[in-house]
Amino acid sequence: MPITRDDLEQQDAADPLAGLRDGFVLPPGVVYLDGNSLGPLPRATAPRVAEVVAAEWGQGLIRSWNDAGWIDLARRVADKIARVIGAPVGSVGVGDSTTVNLFKLLGAALSLRPGRRTILSQTGNFPTDLYVAQGIAALLGRGHVLRTAERDALADAIGADTAVVMLTHVDFRSSAMFDMRAITAAAQAAGAAVIWDLAHSAGAVPLDLAGCGAEFAVGCGYKFLNGGPGAPSFLYIRPDLVDRVSLPLQGWLGHADPFAFEPDFRPAPGMARTVVGTPPILSLAALEIGVDSIGQVDPGALRAKSIGLSTALIALVAQECGAALRLASPRDPAQRGSQVSFAHEHAYALTQALIARGVIGDFRAPDLLRFGITPLYLRYVDLWTAVAALREVLAAEAWRAPEFANRRAVT
Amino acid sequence: MPITRDDLEQQDAADPLAGLRDGFVLPPGVVYLDGNSLGPLPRATAPRVAEVVAAEWGQGLIRSWNDAGWIDLARRVADKIARVIGAPVGSVGVGDSTTVNLFKLLGAALSLRPGRRTILSQTGNFPTDLYVAQGIAALLGRGHVLRTAERDALADAIGADTAVVMLTHVDFRSSAMFDMRAITAAAQAAGAAVIWDLAHSAGAVPLDLAGCGAEFAVGCGYKFLNGGPGAPSFLYIRPDLVDRVSLPLQGWLGHADPFAFEPDFRPAPGMARTVVGTPPILSLAALEIGVDSIGQVDPGALRAKSIGLSTALIALVAQECGAALRLASPRDPAQRGSQVSFAHEHAYALTQALIARGVIGDFRAPDLLRFGITPLYLRYVDLWTAVAALREVLAAEAWRAPEFANRRAVT
Repeated sequence: MPITRDDLEQQDAADPLAGLRDGFVLPPGVVYLDGNSLGPLPRATAPRVAEVVAAEWGQGLIRSWNDAGWIDLARRVADKIARVIGAPVGSVGVGDSTTVNLFKLLGAALSLRPGRRTILSQTGNFPTDLYVAQGIAALLGRGHVLRTAERDALADAIGADTAVVMLTHVDFRSSAMFDMRAITAAAQAAGAAVIWDLAHSAGAVPLDLAGCGAEFAVGCGYKFLNGGPGAPSFLYIRPDLVDRVSLPLQGWLGHADPFAFEPDFRPAPGMARTVVGTPPILSLAALEIGVDSIGQVDPGALRAKSIGLSTALIALVAQECGAALRLASPRDPAQRGSQVSFAHEHAYALTQALIARGVIGDFRAPDLLRFGITPLYLRYVDLWTAVAALREVLAAEAWRAPEFANRRAVT
Repeated sequence: MPITRDDLEQQDAADPLAGLRDGFVLPPGVVYLDGNSLGPLPRATAPRVAEVVAAEWGQGLIRSWNDAGWIDLARRVADKIARVIGAPVGSVGVGDSTTVNLFKLLGAALSLRPGRRTILSQTGNFPTDLYVAQGIAALLGRGHVLRTAERDALADAIGADTAVVMLTHVDFRSSAMFDMRAITAAAQAAGAAVIWDLAHSAGAVPLDLAGCGAEFAVGCGYKFLNGGPGAPSFLYIRPDLVDRVSLPLQGWLGHADPFAFEPDFRPAPGMARTVVGTPPILSLAALEIGVDSIGQVDPGALRAKSIGLSTALIALVAQECGAALRLASPRDPAQRGSQVSFAHEHAYALTQALIARGVIGDFRAPDLLRFGITPLYLRYVDLWTAVAALREVLAAEAWRAPEFANRRAVT
């Protein structure tokens, strides 16, 4: 039985999360399948940011560090993120970019395993993870190396010299998802620490960071957490370790008593020591609203709808586009995050042709069309619209139009 | 002849910069003497931030990285800052916090002088500068040490082991200003590189970074550049060095071809390599307006008014408050930045009592009242209001009220 538009409309009618869509600003005529790259604007964000700018900054001025609670804002947002990723209150920090936070955690991880020299990651992991590891290895100059292994060979690649296993939980290209608990246990059994990059997981799939026992995690504020372009990142350190690790970056706001302006660094207790400089208040205020947009939703219901949507998308693409696109994500939903990728030789131009029709996904080199599945605001019927556009673009070879061939700065 | 309120009003009437005040939101009943800690809100910022949120993010979504120029925003803001600090276009980068940028530059500086082990700074330099130096020395584990010397002993402390001299151009406590050109020349004559921290200089005093020949500089976006709370920081690398130094932090957006997602880091040409993660767009948009608020103003006229104001403040405090307060800044305006500090045993409570009267300066431990002089919006007559409040608070010992004794989170 082919899937019909009616079927999808019925699924929307029965969707217990359907009302959440009203919480977001979504431009008319757009099907947004890129919330995994930049989450859309929550309706509450613009008024909140306007209040921070006009009232807190404009009228409160410097007094707002105390009176508007700016000094506690990062901690408040961090505790909200902790709930989303299954971590205890107080175990998460917010600030800086994912790259900078990865650097802090790699430094911390290497300090925990001083006799070991290998940082193990996955071949094809997100580049910043690899670049940070290459950078810190070169910086330390003590023989550390980054080694990578293919997904299936990772468990066997963990050895006696592995200081830390650093992996992205949900792959940014394929959406393939690691079993966090199993990999963490395997790494720890071999004496290695683990850093999970949750960039494509936080807000996308249920997480139980505390339960898996990993030492460290890092994640992104502007994808499924809807924090806005370049939103601050978060980092997690297992509570029993935070006072034991050496952090490679230390700054005045991570001091135990910042306003004493002491000449020597004394780390603040707990995650407060991971703060380095003054936090970006406007961006943090927007991130808080983004986290609120997902923090109150039952993770099980989100996951169920995410799987419903991604499964429907895969089936619909097969039905409407046949063999033109090859599924590049796991077919088993249990092994898939909240995005679906398809391979096509001309994926870049295809993506551009779809965007020109209001169907916004993205391209990932060399040959992937990537569709983010964001159950907070995506409807089943949106998949119909998207796949109809895809079929049309493929059938008419509309992607061959010259305007879709030129690479833009951000692809 | 004592200074009268009339005298000050006449100076305002003759002030060629008086019209700039209209460009800022300033709450009624407030004399704001803390623009050196958090610059006030430019009138153009709220509409610009609202546009970025509602139109660029809300309607443009991920497309705005290209269509709204987000991908070039940091470079555009950096080039505007370059003009403010006397640096060539292309030699400045923007992003991350001052602390993180100091870390990048210290790593770069140490890579230029591999045989030397000493980071030399000033006793009492801003703590983050000292903490970052302590942190990187410990991280590298190759015998680097931070040494500090008193201001007057600095030149003599530069030696054959000095890899880098790292100084804050205008002291955050006293406002004492180094002769950048002379210190840079002395350091370079001894074979050391120089990092200037311009946190209290950029936008406050005329700068000729290119002319002084220093290798590196860093500075703050939220003080005299009016970029908003926690605005991104900037960093400068002398153009002949940028492709030669090793940067200790590397991330995907500093790659020569970020969207190729290559497994190995290849630095982008020039300052683009200093970018690590995705830039905070909301905060950067606000910073751009802040830089615009000062970027078009003649630095000489700004400096003349700054000296006029700070000289008048010093005279007025002496006239109205007598010996109760001790000037803790250089009396010679040529040696003073754009703030004036006074010592008093109960400076914290005094500052709080003044803030309660709408005169907002700040306290710096252990005993300083610090008044920022920001000629873009400060009027001479505001000094009359401020010093009248100060005299009243001192005369009535109003600062003894118990509500002014309790330290707040941010002092």
